[in-house]
Amino acid sequence: MRILIIGARGSVGRTVVNALEDRHDLIRAGLASGDIQVDLENLDSIRNMYRNAGNIDAVVAAIGHGHFGPVEEMTGELWMKGILHKALPQINVVLEGIPWVSDRGSFTLTSGVLNRDPIAGCASAASANGAIDGFVLGAAGDMPRGIRINSVSPGLLENSTDRYTGKFPGHEPVSSRRVGLAFTKSIEGVVTGQTIRID
Amino acid sequence: MRILIIGARGSVGRTVVNALEDRHDLIRAGLASGDIQVDLENLDSIRNMYRNAGNIDAVVAAIGHGHFGPVEEMTGELWMKGILHKALPQINVVLEGIPWVSDRGSFTLTSGVLNRDPIAGCASAASANGAIDGFVLGAAGDMPRGIRINSVSPGLLENSTDRYTGKFPGHEPVSSRRVGLAFTKSIEGVVTGQTIRID
Repeated sequence: MRILIIGARGSVGRTVVNALEDRHDLIRAGLASGDIQVDLENLDSIRNMYRNAGNIDAVVAAIGHGHFGPVEEMTGELWMKGILHKALPQINVVLEGIPWVSDRGSFTLTSGVLNRDPIAGCASAASANGAIDGFVLGAAGDMPRGIRINSVSPGLLENSTDRYTGKFPGHEPVSSRRVGLAFTKSIEGVVTGQTIRID
Repeated sequence: MRILIIGARGSVGRTVVNALEDRHDLIRAGLASGDIQVDLENLDSIRNMYRNAGNIDAVVAAIGHGHFGPVEEMTGELWMKGILHKALPQINVVLEGIPWVSDRGSFTLTSGVLNRDPIAGCASAASANGAIDGFVLGAAGDMPRGIRINSVSPGLLENSTDRYTGKFPGHEPVSSRRVGLAFTKSIEGVVTGQTIRID
């Protein structure tokens, strides 16, 4: 398959590349690296990415960031960061990408554990994850030409534990191998409308 | 308890009023009716509402609308309607309301069934629900002074079936009595960080 991986150099994207590169033709996209440079917060940039990538069988979106902080200090504007920097960019990858994906192809988005197993200050991030997980369930039934759509929702990644020391008390890190398997299931398998959890 | 019910005249709000009015002091708020007029899409209006309501023991937000339509015809802007007209207004009710809610008081938001049991064209609405459900889980751990927060996620309301004829095939309508009970549990009970589902 020709597979477009957006965020290929990120902590999640690297696990996807490792899981797939031996047997698929990967197109790596990223903000400042890879085969195609793309800023998912810019619609024209997304459209350029698809024009450059051409027809593809699967798309992975593994990007996003948000706001962390207690609700007592949160504003609506801060809350929106999770929506605007994680959920909306990934959803625009789907909305703009449908014409480029082959029959029975797939989209796989990336949410995360915080809307089922929260940590302090995660209300904005948990909302972004919930928006993504809700979207794939709602969108799956609408998809044309047998195109499937899922989200992968990993726990704390073992390759990111250094960045989050003390922030995820008691969370058992999930292996890069298992994260890669979840994306493999979404791309090579048959499920649609699912949030594939890795705990 | 003094309970502020925002959207008191809506299909959900009416069930909440019926369930609570016999034994609590209700302050009804709505866009164009009730004791206090409020537009939850306007931060100043939310702040005025709280100043007018004064100190309260519980807040219910039962408002919101979104975009319905197939993903092939959806744009990021249309997708955002669910976020901007349902999720963000309810979340601003919490972010602006914390100082006005008594110790061990509560917030109860309203999501809905579509992020667990989808219908055609519901991707935007399902995201809004997921954002709300994620928020209450994420925010619960941050709440000061023992304040609790939950969402109520009802199936198709029996009092709304006429509005949605043919749109929810096979969905069994949920009774207004059961919707009222879910809000009662959130307000009078002890749970926090939960999405109380009514199926």
